Amino acid sequence: MILLPTLPTLAIVGATGAVGREMLSILESREFPVSKLRLFASARSAGTQIPFRSEMLTVEPMVEGCARGVDIALFSAGKAISREWAALFVEAGAFVIDNSSCFRMDAAVPLVIPQVNPHALDAMQERGIIAVPNCSTIIALVAVTPLHRALTVERMIVSTYQAASGAGAAAMQELEQQAHAFAAGTPLATPIFGRQYLFNLFSHNSAIGEDGFNEEERKLLTETRKIWNSPSVRVAATCVRVPVLRAHAESIHLEFARSTSESEVRSLLANAPGVRIVDDRAANRFPEPIDASGGDDVLVGRIRMDPSVPDNRGVMLFVAGDQLRKGAALDAVEIAECLLERFGETDTMPQLDHRVHRTWGLV
Amino acid sequence: MILLPTLPTLAIVGATGAVGREMLSILESREFPVSKLRLFASARSAGTQIPFRSEMLTVEPMVEGCARGVDIALFSAGKAISREWAALFVEAGAFVIDNSSCFRMDAAVPLVIPQVNPHALDAMQERGIIAVPNCSTIIALVAVTPLHRALTVERMIVSTYQAASGAGAAAMQELEQQAHAFAAGTPLATPIFGRQYLFNLFSHNSAIGEDGFNEEERKLLTETRKIWNSPSVRVAATCVRVPVLRAHAESIHLEFARSTSESEVRSLLANAPGVRIVDDRAANRFPEPIDASGGDDVLVGRIRMDPSVPDNRGVMLFVAGDQLRKGAALDAVEIAECLLERFGETDTMPQLDHRVHRTWGLV
Repeated sequence: MILLPTLPTLAIVGATGAVGREMLSILESREFPVSKLRLFASARSAGTQIPFRSEMLTVEPMVEGCARGVDIALFSAGKAISREWAALFVEAGAFVIDNSSCFRMDAAVPLVIPQVNPHALDAMQERGIIAVPNCSTIIALVAVTPLHRALTVERMIVSTYQAASGAGAAAMQELEQQAHAFAAGTPLATPIFGRQYLFNLFSHNSAIGEDGFNEEERKLLTETRKIWNSPSVRVAATCVRVPVLRAHAESIHLEFARSTSESEVRSLLANAPGVRIVDDRAANRFPEPIDASGGDDVLVGRIRMDPSVPDNRGVMLFVAGDQLRKGAALDAVEIAECLLERFGETDTMPQLDHRVHRTWGLV
Repeated sequence: MILLPTLPTLAIVGATGAVGREMLSILESREFPVSKLRLFASARSAGTQIPFRSEMLTVEPMVEGCARGVDIALFSAGKAISREWAALFVEAGAFVIDNSSCFRMDAAVPLVIPQVNPHALDAMQERGIIAVPNCSTIIALVAVTPLHRALTVERMIVSTYQAASGAGAAAMQELEQQAHAFAAGTPLATPIFGRQYLFNLFSHNSAIGEDGFNEEERKLLTETRKIWNSPSVRVAATCVRVPVLRAHAESIHLEFARSTSESEVRSLLANAPGVRIVDDRAANRFPEPIDASGGDDVLVGRIRMDPSVPDNRGVMLFVAGDQLRKGAALDAVEIAECLLERFGETDTMPQLDHRVHRTWGLV
């Protein structure tokens, strides 16, 4: 039987990155119960002081034995670090909640969005790795899953409008610095993307396969199938990087197994955990990245029937969600909350229970 | 019989706007044959001096009788001006090539993309109005029509990434000024769109109907049906304004009546007039707005089969085209060239013929 202490020792691996810093802020604002928080990063960043609650924490390097005593580790330091260290943390007795793509498609590893498939954690018999899906997948599926459960998605078409943050803090800085350079009339530096980003957009910077799809697009297909346990659902995506700082938007076409109506779709979304409908046609107000930024919800709007699908089986949506929060750090912290709820030593954590239940409606 | 002088008198109505200024530059660079170029704008702009070739031209106000002597008028001053003045110019003996949406769906008015349906001009028995399609439609159809001719598009799904320029010069200025304000750390002014545009994106700022579609999206449907003379083709679009200055991009899914292959699609596009394939998977180089800006071609890339459509009947593309040029000013000038070719007094304009033929392959 797995037992987690009521006040676990938590670790963040990759604490100085964009997602790591967001995790710290989320743990603080959600009053996540910890006895101790440990921060890990590369040797270069070790020694950095980072405030957490009333303390100053010192970033530790990853060294042999560093995982000892950790109950839950939130990894967000890239695939290579996850590949090298995740198993060592599990061996040392931790749950590892991994933001990288390293283990997502491993059949033994649950791939979890707490609003969508928290039950995937029920199968865990011992401490192990839990994977956080890719940001584009999380943001799409928080919005689409409530419709899928009621109407069965047969085909999903996605065109993304992805922010800089998905490529890390340095990419966000590159975009901001290009705005400064533009204003100053000096040449735009392009160390990260190798091309003008300000006032431009370009195909997602991930490796492209023989079929022409890049990895980001492929993740939307493979992760959706795994999370929904729906190996035949058809998904085709185009992933595009736009000059936005930290929230992704997605234009989504859905084709369902049965007929529906706009009002049915609206009422399914109105009750969906983690979803906020932003759909004011009169004021032309719909999901925008700046409104999603810093928030926990996936904003959903432009809700309308797709007239190019027969029999009222098609629906169109436009969604936006904070890439660093719901697309990464928040999803990881919510998974940690699910673990405490399931495997915590006591069932008397009224405050946490309340928050968990309110957030994804498990009551 | 219609006869146009070899060196016609040309007018630009809306000469001081973003599209009007682009028309001037295109007429100059294409050495468009004119005996006289007249520039019209609002009373506010009248008197402005604008250079054209070796002359300085003075912008005239729109006053009674101002159309006298004009052979071809390029209108780009908005729907209200077109509604008020286009018929008066035709009465005075001019062809009117109108960039507004005023007459596009009028059954008596040809809606023309010279690379796509120059034959729509053949029906003209007298001087009249010719409509330039909306920018998003032009950019999509230059790329998609060669595939439609060979494979028959049954359904087209479009998500746009539209530049500031479609909302005029002031919108472009708003975006640039927001970059300056960001760099200076001062509040962002939002006179045009009423919201932050820099580092953000939002649903297209056009009126929304009861079905939830905005006008920009509806144009992609209705104009495509008219231009293709294909009243049953299914089109569903999502139109989004992104913080880019002057080139639109579009993510396009096509479903054809018959099976195809990536190589067939590539070879159809390789021979398509006005199209340039930009599709370097190894270098991750695909159509980008900054590469399309200032150019005449629609860039087409991310060419791949859509695995979510059965029987190899689905294809995906990503396109980019200069909104001010091919999306508006260039299309209008090319229509004027088509008119001269068809209705010019002599057939001895070797230089123009050469250029016209090279541009859209009518030989």
